Parts: sequence; structure tokens; C-alpha cells
Amino acid sequence: DYAALKPIVIGICGGDGIGPVITHESARVLKHLLADEVKSGKIVFKDIDGLTIENRAKAGKAIPDDVLAELKTCHVILKGPTTTPRAGDPWPNIESANVAMRKELDLFANVRPVKVPAQGIDWTFFRENTEGSYTLGSNGVNVSDDLAFDFTVTTTQGTERIARLAYEFARKNKKNRVSIITKANVIKTTDGKFLRLCQEIGKDYPEITTDDWYIDITTAKLIDEKRRRDFKVFVLPNLYGDIITDEAAEFQGGVGTAGSANIGKCYAMFEAIHGSAPRMISEGRGPYADPCSMLRATVMLLSHIGYQKQADKLERALDICMFDEKRLTVTGRADGATCAAFGDYVLETAEKLS
Amino acid sequence: DYAALKPIVIGICGGDGIGPVITHESARVLKHLLADEVKSGKIVFKDIDGLTIENRAKAGKAIPDDVLAELKTCHVILKGPTTTPRAGDPWPNIESANVAMRKELDLFANVRPVKVPAQGIDWTFFRENTEGSYTLGSNGVNVSDDLAFDFTVTTTQGTERIARLAYEFARKNKKNRVSIITKANVIKTTDGKFLRLCQEIGKDYPEITTDDWYIDITTAKLIDEKRRRDFKVFVLPNLYGDIITDEAAEFQGGVGTAGSANIGKCYAMFEAIHGSAPRMISEGRGPYADPCSMLRATVMLLSHIGYQKQADKLERALDICMFDEKRLTVTGRADGATCAAFGDYVLETAEKLS
Ligand SMILES: CC(C)[C@H](C(=O)O)[C@@H](O)C(=O)O
Ligand SMILES: CC(C)[C@H](C(=O)O)[C@@H](O)C(=O)O
Repeated sequence: DYAALKPIVIGICGGDGIGPVITHESARVLKHLLADEVKSGKIVFKDIDGLTIENRAKAGKAIPDDVLAELKTCHVILKGPTTTPRAGDPWPNIESANVAMRKELDLFANVRPVKVPAQGIDWTFFRENTEGSYTLGSNGVNVSDDLAFDFTVTTTQGTERIARLAYEFARKNKKNRVSIITKANVIKTTDGKFLRLCQEIGKDYPEITTDDWYIDITTAKLIDEKRRRDFKVFVLPNLYGDIITDEAAEFQGGVGTAGSANIGKCYAMFEAIHGSAPRMISEGRGPYADPCSMLRATVMLLSHIGYQKQADKLERALDICMFDEKRLTVTGRADGATCAAFGDYVLETAEKLS
Repeated sequence: DYAALKPIVIGICGGDGIGPVITHESARVLKHLLADEVKSGKIVFKDIDGLTIENRAKAGKAIPDDVLAELKTCHVILKGPTTTPRAGDPWPNIESANVAMRKELDLFANVRPVKVPAQGIDWTFFRENTEGSYTLGSNGVNVSDDLAFDFTVTTTQGTERIARLAYEFARKNKKNRVSIITKANVIKTTDGKFLRLCQEIGKDYPEITTDDWYIDITTAKLIDEKRRRDFKVFVLPNLYGDIITDEAAEFQGGVGTAGSANIGKCYAMFEAIHGSAPRMISEGRGPYADPCSMLRATVMLLSHIGYQKQADKLERALDICMFDEKRLTVTGRADGATCAAFGDYVLETAEKLS
């Protein structure tokens, strides 16, 4: 209950690549909307700068200890994209900072809304966020030069809590359908368990229809203009949630338009669903990065800590700005609007909304 | 080399649900196109009836021993969809017959073409077909009531042979790009190995550009009308291949329009990419099942055994019939054309093509 917290500490964590650009801009908008609360001491902002690939490489850890300690002094975090080292990169093979933060702060639910009102699309994805194929991420086993293993994990508690959250959301928001997405016909043990447990939880919500689909055909159904609007709430294991939310975001304008809430019992973290686009920086296009995804994440943050009025205001402003001419110029190209100019425009628009 | 075989034995294996309906119809078309070869003894057809869910349940095996023995007497197989038992079904928890057949006959490559000429889409997916997350399918471990494990496996040989096939196809068909799709930023050990080995093989094909993408963003890119036509050939682990080919088929008219070749060193099996639709049977709509996917698989079979002229003829006839008025009446609804009537129409059309 955030109303009881005094102050609520909001961490601002820039990340890599275009992360600092779009996070700084979103923080500016956020601070503006919460100016009164900052003045009255209800809200405190805290900059957390150390989550860069350089620092992580030096520490040989997905999140350096001092950064993790700082993150833990916050209640909620607005986090920019971070670069995940990969084979051939100059960095050691450390885990993704996103994935590590989700685990370290036990952010078990990754909530990703996708809305295209004109097409009747109003989806909310509840992606399990701490286990599945991500559990042991960097800890697969090379049994020999010829044979490599990775592991997928489903726990009862991990599944029940994400299912519960999805159904509670559906009930509260009067969504009449929850779709459980797995590949339980092949990945029988873990996905089978996930499906079964979600169906069990669903029985506590007799007013909601539960159905279930395999992940393969679901990616096709999202494209089917006649059937896709029937979907409302999805609950799904980590990897399928990762995959399908990128596809889903495309209907709304691409991953650059999609925010995401990572929710746990003690912490919550809000981020874009896309990566850090290092090439934009190396090509000098950093100032032109598109902040829409982070601003959508900012809406979710505001709503999460109970500032619904501000959340609505920012959301409405974004709905206007994103589909307006000016939005079209925030393309990440050096001849488009800058990230800061788009931030100004969103703020101006929000102010006019009274 | 099929030219050296005398006779080539083609197994016809109906499967479950609508499987027998659409397989029978496709076999009828196939036999018609190969009538001379059957007469001259170059080709022999063999019906394999036992791959039903009832028989499999009785045997407690994904493929009963006698059926497997029969399958192994064939060179190539045309196989209808089979029903995969799932939790709550009256069947024991046996593995998918598809998955089992791919393993038993070592059909390591699942080749799935998707074409939408009007949109410049001409994709061929090379899905690794015997390992990845499918390797131990039904052999995950319930460590306790609370904790379940599944396993993903990548082997050097398994990866190299699918990569080699994809690049050879690209070279032969003058495709200038091969895209390797993984989630190597998270599933580092197995997907990392898959990516690295494919890149290595790619070095033998300097005329072909290799790029690589993560599976999540790839599902978005396929939707992007400006960028998707850049993709040509994909090579990808089993699970991602499963997922993305259903999405891709949707652009072409849905999974009901997509055939698939399962290729190994000793055997090859051709099938639809969709399931057995048991509900169509129980609702009495079986005769109205749409055979297009199986007919596309039949084209691939003809081409595979070296009857390219017949393959082209059938493909051209399908291209005409599928996008024609009559095609629109093969909707699986009881007031549409029957499967048999559509088969007649395809044959008639093929005959007219000289
Ligand atoms: C960057 C990557 C590790 C991450 C994920 O796979 O979860 C991203 O794709 C996401 O969806 O937030
Ligand atoms: C039926 C199922 C086991 C199968 C798979 O997952 O491979 C199907 O979806 C396919 O793509 O052929």
C-alpha cells in the first residue's frame, strides 16, 4: 500500500545505449507531473547511475553489488534498456540486467498492455517473470563439446501467483476471458503444470471464461482480425510472454510504443519492452531516440503508486501525441524531432488537458 | 537419390480427426498425377492405417511397434494430422506422434515455405526437428509437488546438419540471406551454441549474408510490411520454428494452407502444419475439411522424390484454386464445398494446365 509510505522513493536508472536519453526524458515528465508531491515530501526521486555495461563488465555481474543495494532502497524504479552481452561482444558473458533485476527483486509479474482502440484490441499480458526458461539463464551445461543443456523450471508458487494476479486483474477490470498460453502438448512437465495450475486458480473466478491455446497457433490468432479482439487477458510462462508481447506490440506501432510493469511483493520496476539500440548512439542519433515506450511505462508507474489522475493525464496526452503528425517525426532519424522536443510536446499537451 | 530406387514406396498414413479425410483426398490427387509411374512399377503406394489415437493409447506408445515397422518399409510418407493427448483427455499421456516420428525416422529438418507473392513474401523456414526443447518432450522431471523441470538440448551434429541444409538451399535457390533466430541473450548455452555453429557454417557461403535476430523481435518483424520481404531463409531451433511458422502461415491464409516437409537421411515425411481438428469430426463436418495444407505437402513430396513436373503442375493448380471463388467455399462449414469436391476441382484444373 503506497498511500501509507512516506516518502515513496522512485529510483531512476538510465541503463545503456539510448536508455539514459529516454529515461531522463521520462523522468523529467514524471517529475513535472509529481511536482507538488515532491515539494510536500511525499515523493523522493533518486538517481541510480551505475547500471551500465561497463560497470557490469568490471564487476563481472549482471548487477554490481552497490547498484543492487541502491535499487533496494527504492520502492519503485523507472529503468532504461540495458545491453545484454552476447557472444562476440567485448563484454564477459554476464546475464541480462533485466533478467537479473527481475530475479533479485522478485518481480514475478511482467504486465504488458497492448491497445489499438480502432481495431478493438485491448489485451493485457501477464508474463511469469522469474522462472520458466529464464530461471537458470546463464547456468546451462556444456556436457561435452558436442552436447549442451538448458533447463526450464515451473514451480507451484511461481505459477499460482502470476495466475492469481491475472484473474484478479480480469475480475477488477471486468474482463470476461483469461487465456492460458503454453506448449503443454510437447513441453509436458513444466508447461503442463503451468496450464493445470492456472486452470485450478481459474475455478475461483466463475464469472470469467478460461480458455487455453498453444503458443504456436496463438501467434497466428493475434493476426486474425476477426478473432483477435476476443482475447482479453493472457497468462503465460516467461519465454512465451517474451515472444508474443513483441508481436502484439507491433499492432500498436511497434516495441517502441510499449511499456511494461515488473511487479513483485516488495518492489516494482517499469521499463520499455525493447532493447538499448547501441547503434543509435554510435551513429550519433541518440538525442533522437523515441521515448514513447518509457513514457508508457511511466503511466504504469504512476498508476501503480496510486497517482491515477496523473497517470490518466499522461496517458491521454500520449494518445494524442503518439498519433499526431509530430509523433511521426520522432523516428530515431537525425532529421526527426528530438527526444526532448517530444517530451516538451507531451508535457504541453498534458497541461492543456486540465 | 530417388531416381535409383525401384520402386519408390510412398506410405499414406491418415492419422486422426480430419486427418484421414484430407490425407485420402491428397493421396487421390497424388495417385492421379503419378498414374503412369504406378502402372510402370516405378512407384508403389502403401496404406498405413494404424496411427490412430485409439491404437496408440492401447499400445501406450506414440507410435505402435507394428506401425513403426510399416513406416520404415516406406521411402517417403504422406501423413495426416494426429491428435496429441493432453491433460484431461481420456488418453494416456503419450508423446505426440509427429514428434515421435520425427525422432524415430531421424527427420532432422522441418522445411516450411510461406509465400505471398502479392506482398513480396517468399520465406523458407528450416526448423531443427529432432532436438531443442522437444528432445526429452515427455521426460521432464517432477522433482517434487512444487518443482518441475524440462530440458533443452543442442548438439553440434544436430545444429550443423540443419544449418548446412539451410545454406545449401539458399545457395541453390539464389537466396542472398540466411537469418539465424534464437534467444541466445537469455538461453545462453543451447541457443548460444546453435547461433555460433550456424554462423560458422555460414562462413562457407560467402555469397550469402548471414544475420541473426532474437525470436521475440522476429515475431514483430514478420508483421512489418516494409521490412519483412527482406527475409528469405530462416534457420532456427525446434520450438521457435514451431511458433513462428504458425504466425508466418497466417499471412498466406492460415495454418490450413501450409504444408511441411520433414527430411532425414533415410526417410522423408510430408504433413500439414496444423492439428487434427477433432471437433470437426464430432460435429459432423468431417467431409468438409479443407485439404489445402495436405495438398501443399503433396507438392513438396513430389518435388522431393524428383517428380518436379508433377509438383509444378499441382502447385500451379493449387495457386489457382486456393484463391478462386470455389476455394472460399472450402471453409470447413457444412454448407461449403466438400473436401472431395475441392480435390476434383484441383485435378480438373491441373489437367487443363497441359
Ligand atoms: C532483453 C531481454 C533479456 C528481455 C527478455 O527477454 O525478457 C526483453 O526481450 C524483454 O522482453 O524485456
Ligand atoms: C502437434 C505438435 C506436436 C506439432 C509441433 O509442435 O511440432 C505441430 O505444432 C507442428 O508444428 O508440427
